Amino acid sequence: MDGRKRGTGATTLTDVAQLAGVSLATASKAMNGVSQVRAETRQRVLDAAATLSFTPNPFAKALNSATTGTIGMLTQDLDNRFVLPVLLGAEDAFGAGSTSVLLADARSDSIRERHQLGMLLAKRVDGLLVVGRTTNPRASLTAGLKVPVVYVYAPSDDPADLSFTPDNFDAGRQAVDHLLSRGRRRIAFINGDPSYSAAQDRVAGATSRLAEEGLSLVGGADLFGPWGERWGRRCTESLVESGVQFDALLCGSDQLARGALDQLRESRRSVPDDVAVMGFDNWDLLAEEARPPLTSVEMNLEQLGRSAALELVAAIGGTTARGVRRGAVRVVPRESTGSWLHTDGGGTSADTGTRETGTS
Amino acid sequence: MDGRKRGTGATTLTDVAQLAGVSLATASKAMNGVSQVRAETRQRVLDAAATLSFTPNPFAKALNSATTGTIGMLTQDLDNRFVLPVLLGAEDAFGAGSTSVLLADARSDSIRERHQLGMLLAKRVDGLLVVGRTTNPRASLTAGLKVPVVYVYAPSDDPADLSFTPDNFDAGRQAVDHLLSRGRRRIAFINGDPSYSAAQDRVAGATSRLAEEGLSLVGGADLFGPWGERWGRRCTESLVESGVQFDALLCGSDQLARGALDQLRESRRSVPDDVAVMGFDNWDLLAEEARPPLTSVEMNLEQLGRSAALELVAAIGGTTARGVRRGAVRVVPRESTGSWLHTDGGGTSADTGTRETGTS
Repeated sequence: MDGRKRGTGATTLTDVAQLAGVSLATASKAMNGVSQVRAETRQRVLDAAATLSFTPNPFAKALNSATTGTIGMLTQDLDNRFVLPVLLGAEDAFGAGSTSVLLADARSDSIRERHQLGMLLAKRVDGLLVVGRTTNPRASLTAGLKVPVVYVYAPSDDPADLSFTPDNFDAGRQAVDHLLSRGRRRIAFINGDPSYSAAQDRVAGATSRLAEEGLSLVGGADLFGPWGERWGRRCTESLVESGVQFDALLCGSDQLARGALDQLRESRRSVPDDVAVMGFDNWDLLAEEARPPLTSVEMNLEQLGRSAALELVAAIGGTTARGVRRGAVRVVPRESTGSWLHTDGGGTSADTGTRETGTS
Repeated sequence: MDGRKRGTGATTLTDVAQLAGVSLATASKAMNGVSQVRAETRQRVLDAAATLSFTPNPFAKALNSATTGTIGMLTQDLDNRFVLPVLLGAEDAFGAGSTSVLLADARSDSIRERHQLGMLLAKRVDGLLVVGRTTNPRASLTAGLKVPVVYVYAPSDDPADLSFTPDNFDAGRQAVDHLLSRGRRRIAFINGDPSYSAAQDRVAGATSRLAEEGLSLVGGADLFGPWGERWGRRCTESLVESGVQFDALLCGSDQLARGALDQLRESRRSVPDDVAVMGFDNWDLLAEEARPPLTSVEMNLEQLGRSAALELVAAIGGTTARGVRRGAVRVVPRESTGSWLHTDGGGTSADTGTRETGTS
């Protein structure tokens, strides 16, 4: 999550058009869901609108007079740190206009979810944002509903629904890309619970990127275990004791990576000199206080929530869209993976720049 | 946060009366805000109702027909992990009945807060729950509003308002109590940012409890620094290097405590044999994965949110209450403070029971 200040309404459609690199007319068409705009262009305009926290009047105009200006947000498990940024982004996108958010939490209980859904519909919400607790596909709720539904984080299992989920496969690819750029080629992947799509997708992406270089994961693609520092420590210890050579540990979460860092320190392996370490999720609290600070993949969940919210507003305005949109992710480099490789030394000669070396 | 399952409506007022240890008539009076019930009794009934997730029909009956069944929850900063459990508890208490929660986040921006407040009132909410981002007192919003307001986490600065905030002073007292029970008498307090009431109240409570034993904090009461692991490490390192004797480090947050544990390991001090370590907040993710697992003070924020929500419902029903209610907290013992002291050896002879000793 960034510390960027949000605007409070001074943004115009002209600003959005400019940021998206399109004409004002195209921006207007895109925001109104007019079909002659290409899907990619439309997405670019919506993303620009989201970035600028712009919720336009045309949206409000498109809404018929029967609307209440209220959106239902049905969360599966509020007590989950991944849900919060999604909620925040959606609340921001809605709140910038005249739309309010009615919140209901199902607590991972499908009976309660039905109850909460009924309650939201009884309040005559104009649309529903359904926020899952993992990125595993979830059962569609859409059938029989008279209001539009958009799924976030957990995509719907019905391809006729519109869903937004982070691109975990690309996250795995980008992570490996980053490690390769740091001259690492002997990469092990310490992963979390295999029942999570996120765990599977991340390692699949990593494997696919390595295969393009004729490489594969050191220690195999199935180092699954419980999410958490403890498994990060134990798996690292096993790798060290096994005698297998590795110059990078890619960890399925920042927590796993924290455990890996701890264990490497105890095993007297220097990070990033001997081993680069990297996580996913970019949880600032864990990543920034790590020794050394941890490179991680930012999943952009706030942007995901914002995009989904804007699409829901568009859907209420009459646009129809379907399928799974995968939100862009990006690597946030910190000291745990060193700096760019200047010489092509096959992973042995890197300028590692400024860093803590575990003795602070 | 506990993993307790929440009921979905089978609870009756009889169950509440039973749990509160009062008659059905008293429970009914208490829930309806009838004044002949003592405040303590009423609180016990409300707490029991909260525990059982009971939102009674009488509440609905007490509401006049002009109500919308919608509560506004105005958060100052959703992107704050302390807000989430409060929101969760409140949503749970409301959601168990027919009340829905309209969410608006001010993002620590007072202009945006006014805007969001106006939006909530325009939606004709029956009442407002105002959730702060710290426990520092905040400016009252109540003046001129026609609906009841209850403040949570950050108390209102107007004593005529009703506020719920965790009892940080008692948290400090209980923490010291716990360390004394483990035979520790040379306790240092590594604290966070002094501009936070939580930091001030916790150390004040600790100092007061120590004074009752004729003791004071080793290293003084002003070891303030930034919240976070880094300060926990540095302050611990300074204490070790200063040569001052201590047998316990009480840390103003779990993050500080994690830093302290790390540094003690590097300084070859055994936890809890040489030094007991303890935090505040009981953030399971940090506390349970610590080496050894970290004793901490649970601030019961979910219960705080639940109590505030029930009081708001009561206020909508016509009850008036004022002042600051301080929510109960409790110590959650783990291995970092060892086990009970069996012999009264002045802090040198303790049975420390099962624990990790930093070699796992």
